[in-house]
Amino acid sequence: MTGSHYPTIVIGSGSAGFTVAISLSQLGKQVALIEARAVGGDCTNVGCVPSKTLIHEAGEQHGTQPDAAAVLATVRHKRDDLRDEETQQVKQTEHLTFFHGTARFVGAKQVAVQLDDGSTRELTGDNIVIATGSRPTLPKVDGLPSHRTLTNENIFELPTAPAHLAIIGSGPIGLEMAFAFRDLGTRVSIITNTDRVFNKSPIAASETLDVALRERGIDVYYYALATHYDEISETLRIKTPQGPVELSGVTKVLIAAGRQRNIDTIGLEQTGVKFDPKTGIEVSSHGQTSVAGIYAIGDVTPTSFWTHSANAQGRRVVQRIAFPWLPAFGQEPLYPNATFSDPEVANVGLMPDQIAKKYHPKLIKTLRFELPKTDKGYTEGLTHGFVQVYALRLTGRILGATIVGPRASEMISFFTLAITEGISLYKLFRLVYPYPTLSGAIQKVADQYVRETLPAFHIELLDLARYGAETAWQRLRGGTFEVAAPAVLSASVSP
Amino acid sequence: MTGSHYPTIVIGSGSAGFTVAISLSQLGKQVALIEARAVGGDCTNVGCVPSKTLIHEAGEQHGTQPDAAAVLATVRHKRDDLRDEETQQVKQTEHLTFFHGTARFVGAKQVAVQLDDGSTRELTGDNIVIATGSRPTLPKVDGLPSHRTLTNENIFELPTAPAHLAIIGSGPIGLEMAFAFRDLGTRVSIITNTDRVFNKSPIAASETLDVALRERGIDVYYYALATHYDEISETLRIKTPQGPVELSGVTKVLIAAGRQRNIDTIGLEQTGVKFDPKTGIEVSSHGQTSVAGIYAIGDVTPTSFWTHSANAQGRRVVQRIAFPWLPAFGQEPLYPNATFSDPEVANVGLMPDQIAKKYHPKLIKTLRFELPKTDKGYTEGLTHGFVQVYALRLTGRILGATIVGPRASEMISFFTLAITEGISLYKLFRLVYPYPTLSGAIQKVADQYVRETLPAFHIELLDLARYGAETAWQRLRGGTFEVAAPAVLSASVSP
Repeated sequence: MTGSHYPTIVIGSGSAGFTVAISLSQLGKQVALIEARAVGGDCTNVGCVPSKTLIHEAGEQHGTQPDAAAVLATVRHKRDDLRDEETQQVKQTEHLTFFHGTARFVGAKQVAVQLDDGSTRELTGDNIVIATGSRPTLPKVDGLPSHRTLTNENIFELPTAPAHLAIIGSGPIGLEMAFAFRDLGTRVSIITNTDRVFNKSPIAASETLDVALRERGIDVYYYALATHYDEISETLRIKTPQGPVELSGVTKVLIAAGRQRNIDTIGLEQTGVKFDPKTGIEVSSHGQTSVAGIYAIGDVTPTSFWTHSANAQGRRVVQRIAFPWLPAFGQEPLYPNATFSDPEVANVGLMPDQIAKKYHPKLIKTLRFELPKTDKGYTEGLTHGFVQVYALRLTGRILGATIVGPRASEMISFFTLAITEGISLYKLFRLVYPYPTLSGAIQKVADQYVRETLPAFHIELLDLARYGAETAWQRLRGGTFEVAAPAVLSASVSP
Repeated sequence: MTGSHYPTIVIGSGSAGFTVAISLSQLGKQVALIEARAVGGDCTNVGCVPSKTLIHEAGEQHGTQPDAAAVLATVRHKRDDLRDEETQQVKQTEHLTFFHGTARFVGAKQVAVQLDDGSTRELTGDNIVIATGSRPTLPKVDGLPSHRTLTNENIFELPTAPAHLAIIGSGPIGLEMAFAFRDLGTRVSIITNTDRVFNKSPIAASETLDVALRERGIDVYYYALATHYDEISETLRIKTPQGPVELSGVTKVLIAAGRQRNIDTIGLEQTGVKFDPKTGIEVSSHGQTSVAGIYAIGDVTPTSFWTHSANAQGRRVVQRIAFPWLPAFGQEPLYPNATFSDPEVANVGLMPDQIAKKYHPKLIKTLRFELPKTDKGYTEGLTHGFVQVYALRLTGRILGATIVGPRASEMISFFTLAITEGISLYKLFRLVYPYPTLSGAIQKVADQYVRETLPAFHIELLDLARYGAETAWQRLRGGTFEVAAPAVLSASVSP
C-alpha cells in the first residue's frame, strides 16, 4: 500500500464531484478524484443524458412507425460520446489526479482506494468531498428474474423496446420512461403504492398527469403492489384495492421506486461525520459536514435530488475551498425541479403541503390559469397544462409555483428568479409577455390576483392582520397548521 | 344623420381596441366600439392567430408528406371560431355598443361612422381611443396581377400551398411564412432589399437565421429588388448586386415589406392631434395624445408593433380612464418581441445599435452562449441558437438580451423580468436552473461574466470610472458614440 497527500480529495465523479474536481483543478489546486464506475456518474451514464436523449428521440417517433432499436442505439451512442469526453477531461486536466477504484474512509481525513488491478492506495487530504450519489432501491418481487429486471442503470442497454413494460413507481424516472417507451410502441403499465403519480408535486400536477397517461394508453394501478412474477407465462401479479390483477405478457419490469444514498458503503463511521440513514449527511448551506474539512454534496445530502442542485452545491464547495476568505453563504439557493414527462412538470419554491405547515390557510392565495385557455394553447391545440402560483394575500409575495405544460422546464426559471428576488405579483402584473406564448398564463395569474385583491383591499388588510398574528403565534409555539398531522411529520417542518 | 354621446369611443377592435372596450364595459363604463372589418383586428383574423396555428400545424407535417389543404383548412377553422367568439363577445357585453362601419373624425371629439347599410351615425365622446392599426405596405412589382399577390390579409385564404412562393421582405411576417410554407412542401424564395434577414434584430440572430433558411432549402436574395413578373411564364425577375435573376415557376408572391399606420384615412387633421406620418401619433406613456381625452394605442403609436404591446398600452389607457385618480404611469414597460421562425428569435431591452448610441463601447460586455453546447441542446441534437446578453461592465446591469432557439419566445420573459427589476448578472450567477434545459445557457452567460469580471476587478473599476465619465460627458453634450452616424440618426437617439 502506497500513500499520497492531496489538498482535496473528491469521492465520486458525478455532477457534484465532477464540478468540484474540474473547477478546483482549473483554479490551480491539486485534486484527487476517485470514481468506482464510469466518469460522469448517474447523470451522464444512466440518468439525465440518456433519458433526455431517449425522450427527445422517442418523441420524434410519436405518431409514426417507431424504430425503437435505432432510437436506443442513438441514445447509447450520444451517451458514450459524452462519457468519453468527460473521461478524457478528468484524465487530461492539469492538477487533477484520477483514480479508478472504490474509496473507503479509513480515518477522518484518510481514504483507501481499491484500484482496478486489486492494489490499494491510501490517500490523505486536507479537504475531502463526499459525492458518492445514490442508487435505486430494489423492492423484492417474488419470482422476478434478473434478466427481466430493469433499473435506470441498465434500461438504456435494451437492444429494443419491450413489448410490455411494467413500471414499479411513479416518480420522475418512472413517469419519464413511461411516456418515452409508450412513444416507442411499448405497452406500459405503472404500478404505484401511492394514491397519485408524482406525489412530490402538487395534486393538480398529479391529476393532469393521470389524464395524460390514460390518454396515451398507459395503465396506472394506484395503491398497488407487485407481488409475483411468473416467468413461464410472463405474468406479473399485482395486489390492488380492487383485488388481485394479472398483467399478462410483461416482458420487462422497471424498478423506479425511489433511491438510496450511497453512504452505507464508504466507511463513514471512521470519520465522525454526522448522518441520518434516512435523510442523508448533515451539511451546512455550503456543504460542510460536522467534521471540519469534510464536505458532502449531491444525492448524499438531505436537500439535493437533482443534477442542477448537485452542481450548485459543488460550486459552493469550490468557493469555500478556493476562496475561504470570501463571506460565508446564507441559506441554500432555491432548487427548482423539472420532470420531462409529456406534459412536463416543473416546481420551484414552497409546495402547498409545506406552505400549509408554515402559514394560516387564510393568508394564502392559490392562483391558476389553464394553458389551453391561452391563445398560444389554442393555436397549438393544447389539451393539458397550467401555471399555478402560491402567494401571500395582500403583499403578493410569491412562495412557490408549479407549471405543467410542454415547456414547463424552460418557463420555471422565471419563477425561480421572481421568488429569489422577492418580486411580487403586482410587479408581474405590470410586465409584458410576448404574444402568443404560454408565458401569457403568468399574466393571467397576476391579473387574477390583482382583480381579487384591489377591490377588497380593506378586507385583505384586516385578514392579513388577523391571520398573520395567528401564524406568528403558532410559530412561536413551534406548532404548525396541520393540527391532525402525525407528530413526526410536524417535527420535521417547523419553519 | 343621428347622433349619440358616449363616455368613451374606441375606433378599432384589434388587440388594442378590444382590450379597452371590453375592460371598460366590464367595469361598468359605457363604450362605443367601431370596427370597419372583422372583430379582433389583424391578430385574430390575419395575424398572430392564423399564423401561429399555421406554423404549429405545418411544423407537425415537417418531414412527412404534408397535407397542405387540410392544414390551411384547420387554420381558417380555428381562426373563424375565435373570431366568432370575439364577435359574440362585443355584441353581448353589457355597456358596450358595437358599430360595424368606417369611422372618421369630423371634430376633435366627434366621429362619423359610415355603417354597412350606407347610413351615417355621428358619435361624440368624452374619451376617444384611436386603435386603427396598420396595413401592409405594397411596393409595386411591374406586371404582377392581383390574383398572384398575397399579403398577410389573404395568405390564409389559400386553398392549398403554392408550388413556389416568392416572399418580398425578410421581417417577422416574411420569415414566419417562409418556414411554415416550406414545411408544407412549397419552394420558397426570399427577396430582401437589406443586407440581412430580420434586420431589426442583432446581427447574430440574422446570421443564425440565414444558415437555418439555407439548410431548409429556402433561397435568400440580399440587396435585391423584385422588378417584373411575367404572367405567361410565371417568372419573377429580380435585380441583385450580382446582376438580374429570373425565378421561374413563381405561382404566388407574398408582400411582407413593412407596415403602414392607419392614420391617413381617419380625418386625424380634424382633431389637432399631433402625429408624424413616419413615426405615428405622438403619445405619452399612458397613450394620451396632444389633445386631452384622445388616446392612441397599438400600431398607430411610435412604440408598439406587437399584439402584446398593443394590449399593454390598452391596459394603461383603461386604468387612466377608469381610475384617473391612480398615480400616473412612469415610462412604458419593456416590450419584448418574439418571432416564430425556426428557430425562434426573441429580444428584449436595448439592442446593440441602441446601446452603441448610449454607452461608450468599453463600458459594455456582450456575452453569448450557444444552445447546442448546453447539455439539453446536445440531447436534442440542436444545431442552432444562442443566448446573448448585453450588460454593463462591473455592475453587471443587464441592458438587453437576445435568444435564438426553439423556445426563445418562452425563455425571453426571464430577461424582461431581470431587466425591469434591475437584477444583475451576479444574481443570475447564483440562481439554479433546472437540468437539462436550454435555460442553462443563462447560467453559462452569467458564469462567463463573473469569470471575466472578478479576477480583474480593479481594471474593471478603473475602466468604469474612465468610460463612464466619457459617457456622461457625451450625454451632456447630447451626442452619441456613433461619431460617423448620419446626423438624422444621431438626433433621434439622444438618451
